[in-house]
Order: sequence, then structure tokens, then C-alpha cells
Amino acid sequence: MSGSTFGTLFRISTFGESHGGAVGCVLDGAPPGLALSEEDIQKQLDRRKPGQSSVTTPRKEPDKVHLLSGIFEGQTTGTPILMILYNKDAQPSAYNDIKEMFRPGHADYTYLKKYGIRDYRGSGRASGRETAARVAAGAVAQKLLSQRGVSITAYTSRTAGISCTTYNPAEIENNPMRACDPVAAEQMVSRIEALAQEGDSVGGIVECRITGVREGLGEPVFDKIEADLAKAMLSLGAVKGFEIGRGFAAADLQGSEHNDAMDAHGFKTNNAGGVIGGITTGEEIYFRIAVKPTSSISKEQDTVDLDGNERVIRTEGRHDPCICPRIVPVVEAMAGLVLEDHYKRFESQNL
Amino acid sequence: MSGSTFGTLFRISTFGESHGGAVGCVLDGAPPGLALSEEDIQKQLDRRKPGQSSVTTPRKEPDKVHLLSGIFEGQTTGTPILMILYNKDAQPSAYNDIKEMFRPGHADYTYLKKYGIRDYRGSGRASGRETAARVAAGAVAQKLLSQRGVSITAYTSRTAGISCTTYNPAEIENNPMRACDPVAAEQMVSRIEALAQEGDSVGGIVECRITGVREGLGEPVFDKIEADLAKAMLSLGAVKGFEIGRGFAAADLQGSEHNDAMDAHGFKTNNAGGVIGGITTGEEIYFRIAVKPTSSISKEQDTVDLDGNERVIRTEGRHDPCICPRIVPVVEAMAGLVLEDHYKRFESQNL
Amino acid sequence: MSGSTFGTLFRISTFGESHGGAVGCVLDGAPPGLALSEEDIQKQLDRRKPGQSSVTTPRKEPDKVHLLSGIFEGQTTGTPILMILYNKDAQPSAYNDIKEMFRPGHADYTYLKKYGIRDYRGSGRASGRETAARVAAGAVAQKLLSQRGVSITAYTSRTAGISCTTYNPAEIENNPMRACDPVAAEQMVSRIEALAQEGDSVGGIVECRITGVREGLGEPVFDKIEADLAKAMLSLGAVKGFEIGRGFAAADLQGSEHNDAMDAHGFKTNNAGGVIGGITTGEEIYFRIAVKPTSSISKEQDTVDLDGNERVIRTEGRHDPCICPRIVPVVEAMAGLVLEDHYKRFESQNL
Amino acid sequence: MSGSTFGTLFRISTFGESHGGAVGCVLDGAPPGLALSEEDIQKQLDRRKPGQSSVTTPRKEPDKVHLLSGIFEGQTTGTPILMILYNKDAQPSAYNDIKEMFRPGHADYTYLKKYGIRDYRGSGRASGRETAARVAAGAVAQKLLSQRGVSITAYTSRTAGISCTTYNPAEIENNPMRACDPVAAEQMVSRIEALAQEGDSVGGIVECRITGVREGLGEPVFDKIEADLAKAMLSLGAVKGFEIGRGFAAADLQGSEHNDAMDAHGFKTNNAGGVIGGITTGEEIYFRIAVKPTSSISKEQDTVDLDGNERVIRTEGRHDPCICPRIVPVVEAMAGLVLEDHYKRFESQNL
Repeated sequence: MSGSTFGTLFRISTFGESHGGAVGCVLDGAPPGLALSEEDIQKQLDRRKPGQSSVTTPRKEPDKVHLLSGIFEGQTTGTPILMILYNKDAQPSAYNDIKEMFRPGHADYTYLKKYGIRDYRGSGRASGRETAARVAAGAVAQKLLSQRGVSITAYTSRTAGISCTTYNPAEIENNPMRACDPVAAEQMVSRIEALAQEGDSVGGIVECRITGVREGLGEPVFDKIEADLAKAMLSLGAVKGFEIGRGFAAADLQGSEHNDAMDAHGFKTNNAGGVIGGITTGEEIYFRIAVKPTSSISKEQDTVDLDGNERVIRTEGRHDPCICPRIVPVVEAMAGLVLEDHYKRFESQNL
Repeated sequence: MSGSTFGTLFRISTFGESHGGAVGCVLDGAPPGLALSEEDIQKQLDRRKPGQSSVTTPRKEPDKVHLLSGIFEGQTTGTPILMILYNKDAQPSAYNDIKEMFRPGHADYTYLKKYGIRDYRGSGRASGRETAARVAAGAVAQKLLSQRGVSITAYTSRTAGISCTTYNPAEIENNPMRACDPVAAEQMVSRIEALAQEGDSVGGIVECRITGVREGLGEPVFDKIEADLAKAMLSLGAVKGFEIGRGFAAADLQGSEHNDAMDAHGFKTNNAGGVIGGITTGEEIYFRIAVKPTSSISKEQDTVDLDGNERVIRTEGRHDPCICPRIVPVVEAMAGLVLEDHYKRFESQNL
Repeated sequence: MSGSTFGTLFRISTFGESHGGAVGCVLDGAPPGLALSEEDIQKQLDRRKPGQSSVTTPRKEPDKVHLLSGIFEGQTTGTPILMILYNKDAQPSAYNDIKEMFRPGHADYTYLKKYGIRDYRGSGRASGRETAARVAAGAVAQKLLSQRGVSITAYTSRTAGISCTTYNPAEIENNPMRACDPVAAEQMVSRIEALAQEGDSVGGIVECRITGVREGLGEPVFDKIEADLAKAMLSLGAVKGFEIGRGFAAADLQGSEHNDAMDAHGFKTNNAGGVIGGITTGEEIYFRIAVKPTSSISKEQDTVDLDGNERVIRTEGRHDPCICPRIVPVVEAMAGLVLEDHYKRFESQNL
Repeated sequence: MSGSTFGTLFRISTFGESHGGAVGCVLDGAPPGLALSEEDIQKQLDRRKPGQSSVTTPRKEPDKVHLLSGIFEGQTTGTPILMILYNKDAQPSAYNDIKEMFRPGHADYTYLKKYGIRDYRGSGRASGRETAARVAAGAVAQKLLSQRGVSITAYTSRTAGISCTTYNPAEIENNPMRACDPVAAEQMVSRIEALAQEGDSVGGIVECRITGVREGLGEPVFDKIEADLAKAMLSLGAVKGFEIGRGFAAADLQGSEHNDAMDAHGFKTNNAGGVIGGITTGEEIYFRIAVKPTSSISKEQDTVDLDGNERVIRTEGRHDPCICPRIVPVVEAMAGLVLEDHYKRFESQNL
């Protein structure tokens, strides 16, 4: 029960460390008869992979997915699908510093306290590389959801002190920030390049909008749609906050302002963000997440070694000064996993 | 798979509607040999019950818990514990308006779309009364956690535009807001009384601090402590946001500011909020939630009836102008359920 | 994770000890809109209750079920259904012997070793009374299955050395043995009455036939229909064996004898018992279980007390000399829970 | 929820078809710090692999396992372990007959009815090759159990009409039948060779004995040890029956004969087979399973094709005339998975 499984009827079990043999997942619950190729999945993985621009790490990893089960003659068979991405060989010598010291912001210390043993190479199981498995499975969810008319769009809305002021979805994939405002995106890039120069990193806000979801999805008590989305998002190592609809702003509103009134055409407003009582209203679902700054920086930081001696560490290597553009496809994937699972649950509940 | 189960090794399955026969839960996973009485649980339920002050509903409900299994001669036996609170009879005529119309902000519309049938009495399964079952189970978790040296304290930190400016935990149970600042609490009460007079309600922010948690709790990937806490909190109908540690503020920080450096005495800061990579650091866990304004208000609101005709509704009855003070024990209960579950998972993992 | 939950999409969580406050279950997964009354359930409970004839215990227990949630105006709402049977007061003095000694064949010793604490009154959680909760939930499954055209019939086929030689389903409920052969039933009754006179008990074989099940139900690997049926049956304390189709007799057959050939009308034989590779063929499902003799007998037996001293025990009280007729409705209930769950799983799997 | 997951705290999720890219599993719940090599696992896989003798298929498959995650410097890290066995290329032309016709005794027909699509190559997901994944995971369980002092021994006790008459565990691995009686083993081999010559196959009985298990393992209600063992065994495609302790023979006994009395040294008999009320007594656990004859035979059989036309089929290829010797390590693996899981559950339950 190591917490590597997500979902109920559409479920993934992930495995893999950054520098072990492979990362990937077993996807259980894809329906039979779905046309599915490695290209369908690679497309999404390529959006997450490193080396895409100056604001992300220049490391080059092919992140090539292989589908080794559950597919026959180009179609799913209804049995578990193994999706695997082999790791390239790492040079263990590259990790001598990490081996002996705890990197601030990383899970080095907590893993050692938990397990008493630690695969220190590239963060091991705590590596962001683990999210490639999620993106792979999410690509299947998104393919199924698109057949249902559901569309999921995430984007960077703020970073390095700069917020988007327009929402132009067509521009998201046209700028390295995956921001919804191309003008803000340019400013973000310059600021991040300057920070990277100093050996520092920065956090940001990513938003997600989901349209086309039917009414009535979600479970009343613990497995509310927003609860499952919150869990999905906070299960990303870099995410420190989640809000849906008006979110924290709702705390300052009055009932008469926040309640979404109805008329003959439906809801007059959508302060709720598309869910009431855990169940979808049919309106757009929208939520935001807080992304912390990348932990790996090349500035000097105080830390201790395994024996508790005070040390200074500089995390060398090629890191992401801002993880937002690469987290965007992960957010979409996780939202897709939550929604496809709830569609299946909805469909299993009626007479 | 109706989403009424929470937890893995320390697990509850809840049942009950606001005006059916009873609400409650089956708690599975309490260890044998724990001294447990109905009084242990009633104490927490009394903090959640209605009728405590002018800022909450004046309805009087005894909310008396009965333990009908799993206890023998005052001790738990290791078998499931049924905790049940019987409902008092409701007058069905009180619900004539609700029966025909969808109340803005309530789950009336979504339940009907989900199930095609709706127990409209007092919100049915969507009623806040369902959280009494959580508080009952949480009381057992909190008793176990206190034996582990863990202490959980939630409190209102902001409502009606007023924020606490001091943190005085000894004052929390001494004011009707369960605010951590008695001066702010007084101002909150006057503002809320005024709003209630107008037939309106207001939201707020509730914070929670957890001390004494050991290092190494939590699972690396999906079942991160912060992910399970986020799910627990967003599973409360009134909650629209969650942030841990620096939360949304982290989005504007740089890595060199946000990373928690270490020295020979441990962590020098706690921006992370007590969890890194999903696993506890041993530092204080602190998080905040956004509470939306109570949906039930007596002001007139636009809505439609079951046939789609436009109508005006005023939700009569005795409602909570601000739910924050009553959600405080629920937040503690849910946090307790998450932590006790993760302690058990931790203990089951080692050789 | 105390093992009190059964099923996935149609799932029960049971609670209760023989002499605690109540026994019962929460049924999660019944569809909304099903007409359901306490009478629907009581009918099945009455077949399991004690005091029906000379071959079962003369104890009188009303075993009255109460539905306290999940029902509104006579219909299920899709939310969890609490089914509860209150226990009558027990006289603790009746258990003085059991308190100090381990009864042979009972779980007294194993519970103490497991939990370190033991509710010794009437076997506590290990009591056969726990199966009343299963029968209650099974009644809902059977109601749903009958709407699908599925019929489940269990019956005593052998006990006390006497086997049924005809299969007459119309006679099953007309004799106290619930045997499918009324002539054999009469002989069984005399033999059992004689054994009861001596203070002894006897085991037997119960068979079950299920017709009307569609093709394609069941999961390929671990959750094969026969695997779930086997688990369901062996989860009954008195059951020591399970076989499906030709069962143990298949061990002596050759492939050319055992394989079910097909022709244009379908399968020519049904040696498989209605399942191949874990998935239903559409043919009748039939299986048999071995029921051990009732552990409670009034003959003297050797045992030890809590301090390990050798003692002689006679389990006084009114016990079932043969449990077969009362286990018949429990077998039907458990088979119903397995099948309804698999129908739901089947329905959730396709595009 | 395709039923490809087994276990709770020590849990495997399997994947793979006979002729897809690979078969294998993700093992979740192995403790950190266990020394584990591919050789540890290969040893058990070699006992299951084809081509070992004249009574099993002469096909040669290397069945080489690869551990691609969860291991660091020769030790488990506590994270999921991917165990994978790559498939060799198959010649699709070899499956032309199977593609069009349903093989009697095989799951061809049921899979098509379930999924509407069928990977017909070598039985696809229904192939016995899937059990290699179970053996791989079981090897880890057995390594952990041996550290606990638990020993699991399965063996062929009857096939082709011949029963073992002695129990000599040292001889089991010394004869191609894995029978516990070397004299019987020789007779079995001759009979099976003769049957194979005729193009036929035969079933058998496999027994399993488990020693060294502590008292108190197992859960009272649904997850009884014997229920989980029964499910584990019936989840093997060739198994049609399970009995524990005296099993079906208990049906003819009286309570005074079957109850295991106690004296100062413990239990005087072990008719129960090491479990009472679902919980271990500390005595030897012993059970037996019925294995049906191998479905693939080269004798002519009647069947139909996809269009329902009557056809005659001979399943060419190299098949196992008797699967018993190869199922022995699978039985041990499944028993190991059940027991290690229950040890972990036991350990997670106490204060």
C-alpha cells in the first residue's frame, strides 16, 4: 500500500525511479476496442519532456513510450496496458554530492527517514520523471474524454511576478511558458532567464479549464470531483495549493454574492467552478494550483550531511528555472484521469 | 463505489441523510484494547452541534452518539465500530418549497441530475449533518494520535473581512468564532450578526496546525500527506480551496527563498509546512482552507423549479450565518483520520 | 482493513457481534430508484433465523431488519443503505464457561491470539449471527438479479450420510432440511434428531445452481467468477470446501472427456459449471460446498482454560445439530452479492 | 477494475498476454532493505517454465525476469518493483485455426463475449503464461516468509488415477511429477506419456502444506485465511476445487469427531487444517486443489467457428499433457502472497 495507485475504475499503478531501469505504469480499466498507438501517447509526453526551451532544463531525454500489453492489432483489448519508458544509463559519479548531503527543498531527508534507504540518483522515486507515467496514462484518458466531448486546457497564468491579463487559448502552445497571454509570456521568459543566470528558480500559478463535462458526475461524500482533483494536484511534488471556482476569494464573499442563481437558461453565474456538493453542474470546471519554485538551484545553500555536519551545497546540473510549462501537460493528464474515472463510476451506478 | 469510504488501514464508511433514520459510520481499523466510551466521542460532537451561539444556527439537535459494535467492557475489540446518531422526526411539510425548487448554492440540482431521484429533506445526503459521522470517527483517531504525542488545532483565522492578528491557542474555545485572536473574534461576531439580520451569510478561512508528527509519514506518489489532506478538506461541501506551507504565496517566491535550509539543529525554516515530497519532515504541519459562505440565506434569490420555470426562493429556516466555528472540529477530525491512517501505513511498511 | 468489506461496485461493510448492540451492514452501490422495503429483506432473513424446526436451534430471535438510510419514499436513492438488526439483551452469566475455556471447533482461541481481547459472549464477531447482515444485503442483490432474469437456488444435497437422489426444486422450501429430495429429507431429519439426542452434530453438502446469467461476466485473472464465489463461500465459518462444475471429479478426467464441445446450438455439455477462464459461458453455474459439523455440541470435550489447565467442557445451550438448512439462504445471498457485483463491473467496462 | 490486482498491503498488479510484448507485475508493499536479486526470482520461475520433462510441454521459453524498479544496490527501496518477462516473437500464422474457431475448454468464447475483441494468440491474457508474474512476485513473498520461519510445500498427490501413498518431501523436486511419492511418480509418468501419445491430457490433485505460521493471522469475516487461499487457488484457470483441513470429508463427520480438542500441549488433532474462524491456530495449514485436464489436446473435438458453423478442431502445438508439476510452484507462490499479505495486515492492526 505504497500509494502508487490512483483511480478506481480507470486506474493506474505507477513504478520507477529516475535512474533505475524504467518508469511507467499499468493502466487498468481502459475499455476494449479503443484504437490506441504509441504515437497517441508520445504526443503528450513530448510536451512534458525536458529540453524544450530556455526556461526549462536543457537536458535531452527521449522519453519514448512502449506499450507492451493490452493492445492487439492497434486496439485495446480491455486488459491492463503496460506503458514503459526506459531510463538511460546514468553516471553514478554525478551524484556524489547528493549521496552525502540533503538538498534543501528535495525529499532526500524525508525518504531516508521513511525508508532507511535511499536511491539518491536524481531524486529516485521522488523525481519529477515519475510524472511521465501519469502523462502517458492521461493521454488515454484524454482520448476517451475527447470522444465524450470533454476538453481540458491548462496553462501558466502567473510566474516571476507577472500575470496573464488576457486568455487566448490558441496561443498557449505557441510560447515556451504555455501561458495564455503571449505578451505576458515574453516578459516571463526574460525574467526567468535572468533568474536562471543567477542560479535561482521561481514558482507560479497554473490554471485549468474543463469544458463539455456532463451534469451529475462525482460522488456525494468523500469522492467529490473537487476532492479528487485536489488530491490529484497536491500529489504533484511541486504543488502547494489548489482552489476551485472562486476559491480563496469565496472566503470574503456573502452568500447572496457567491450562490449561483438560475434562470430558464440555466446557471446565471459559475462561482462554484462547475461543481456543487461534489457533483458537476454541467458548467465549466476551472481550478488553479500554486507551484513552488524548483528546488534544484545552483546558488549555495546551507544543509547538513548524513552525519549531521553542516555543509554548503550547490545543486549542479541542468535544472528547470521554472517548472510551469512542463507541469501543464501533467495537470491536464491528472485532470483527465480524475474525470474519466468519474465517468466510469457514473455509468456503473444506474439501473 | 459511491464514495462513502475514506482511509485505507484506518477507514470509515459513512451513511445517512439529514432526515432519514440516522447518520453515522462504521469505523474499521481501530486497534483492539483501546479504552473507548461514548463520552470520548460526544465531546467532539458537542463542538460541532448546532445551537452553540448567535453566529451559528439556533436549531437544537442533541447529536447523541451510540456505539453499537466493536466495544466490549469499555474497550475496542479490533472489529468494526458502528457509530450511529439517530435523526429526530422531521415535518415533511417544512420542505414543500425545496421539493419543487433548486436552492442556489445547494446540491439540489446536481443530485437530481446524478440520481434521477432526490431526498430533498434538509439536503439529504448532501447535508452538513453527514459530517457528524466524520467527527465521531475523528474523535477515535484523535485519541490514538494523542497517545502518539500528536496534537491537532484548527481555528477560524478570517471571516467577514476580519483577520486574526495574533495566535492565541488558549482562546480558541473561549469565543463563539473559534478564532485564535479574541479581539478579532468580537469584531467578527458583530459583523456576522449584522449580516444574519439582513438574511445573508459569509465565508472565511480556517487554519490548522499539527504538532508532534514523526518524520517519514506519507507515501511518495499519489498518497502524499498533503494530497490526502487536500482531498479530506475538499471533501467538505463548503470548502473551495486548500494550501499547505506557504501555499499560493510560494508561487511568487524564488527557490533560494522557499527552500528550507538545514543546520545541525534541523530545518532552519518551515516554508514547506511540514511535508516534502509527500512525506513529513517532523516540523509543524500547517494548512489553510477557504470556506464558502453558507448557501442557505433568507434573502430572495432567483432559481427555477423542477419544470424549468423561473421562480424566486427564500430559504427559510434557521441557518448558520457563518459555518467556520462549526467546521473547526470537522477539520480536526478529518486531519486526524488522515494522520492516523498514515501512521498505520507507516508501521505496516517496515521489515 | 479488518476484512469486513466485500465486493467492489456492489459492496457491503458489515459490523456487529452476537451480543453487542446490533449486527448489520452498510450496502454501498445499490442503484437509485429501486423499490425496496424492509419486507423484501425480512423474507430472506426469516429463512435464516433460528427456531424453524427440530433440526435447527430452538432459540427464538426475531431478527427484524431496519433500513435507516439510503431509502426515500420507498425507493433507493443511490446512497449507502444502513441495514441493522438490534440484538436482544443477553444474560452474561450464561457465558461463564466460555469466558474461561476455549470451546473446541470455535474461534475462541484464535481470536484471543489475534486480538489479545475477546468478546466471548456467543462467539462475538465470529458468531453465525454475523451472516444475517449478509442475507440482508443479499436480498437486495437477489432483487436486482431477478430483474436481470437471474435465479439462484441453493439446497442441502447430503447430510448425516444420506444423499438426495432426485432434484426437485419445488420441494426445497417444503422440508426442514431444505433438501431437493423430500424422501431423503425425511431420513435426514430422523438421523439428525437422533444425533441431537446424543448431544452431537453433523455436517453436510450444500449445492447451488444459478440460471439466467449472461455470457461474459467475470474478470480474467484474479477476480474470476469462480474465485470470487470460492472466497464468498469459504468466508462462511462452517465451510471447508468448494468445487465448481465437475470439481474434484475433474481431476480424474481426460481433456477429451472434460472439455465442453460446441455445436450450432451452443455448448454440448457443461462440465465447466458455467465458467471458463473466470468468465461466464451463459450455461448454468453450479457449485457445491462442504459444511463442517456444528462446533457447539453438548457432549463432553477436552480443552484448556485461559491458564492452559486441562478441562472438560460441554457447550450447553440450544444449538443447531445441522446447520445446512440455515446456511442455504446465506449461500444464495453470497452468490447474489458476487453476481450483482460482477454485473456492475461488466457494465462499467465497455465503451 | 479489471481484476488484475491481488492483495492489500502486499499487493501485485499483473499485466501481459501470451504473445504481446511482455508479461509481468508491479509488486507494491515489499519492505525496504530486503536483499533481492533477479536470481532469487529466477529460481522459482525455472520450476514453472516449460520444457522440463516428458510430462510437460517441450516448448522452450527462457522466462528470464528483469527487475526494472524498486531496487537500489541490490536492496529493495520500499517503492514498487516492476518485474518483467519479455515475450519472444510469435509466428501469427501459427494461430490461424484459433483465430477462427473456439477451442473447447479454453476461454476463447468467453473472452469474445466479454470484450468483443480477442487476442487469440496463445490464449492472450488467459494464457497460463500469466502465472509467471505470480511466481515472480511469490518468490519475494516466500523470501520474506522464510525469514519469518514459514515454509510452503506443494506437490502432486494424484493424477491419471494414481495416488501417492507416502509423503516424502525430499523427493518432490527429484521426480518430473513433483509428486511426494517417487514410486507413484514413476507410474504417473508412464500413464501420462501414454495419454500424450493418444493426444490426450489428464487432471490431478495438488496438495499444499504450510508450516511455521504464527497464531492469530487472518481476518474474522470476509478475509478469512481460507477464503483468501480459496480465491487465490480458484483464480488459477485450471483449478476447479479447493478444500482445507478435512474438507469435503468433514461433511460426513460429527461434531465430536471433527472438533479439535485441546490439552496442555495444544491441539490434539488438526482436522481444521490450521484455521478456525478464518484465523490461524499455529498448526500446519494444509489444503488440496482439483486441477482439470489441460484443455489443449490434439484429439479431434467438435466446435464452432466465429460464424457459428460446426467445425472440427485439433489443437496442434506442444502442450502439457498434465499441468500438475508446473502448477506446483504457482500454488506455492499464491499461498505465499496470501500469507505475507496477512502477516502485514496482522502487524498493522495492533496498538
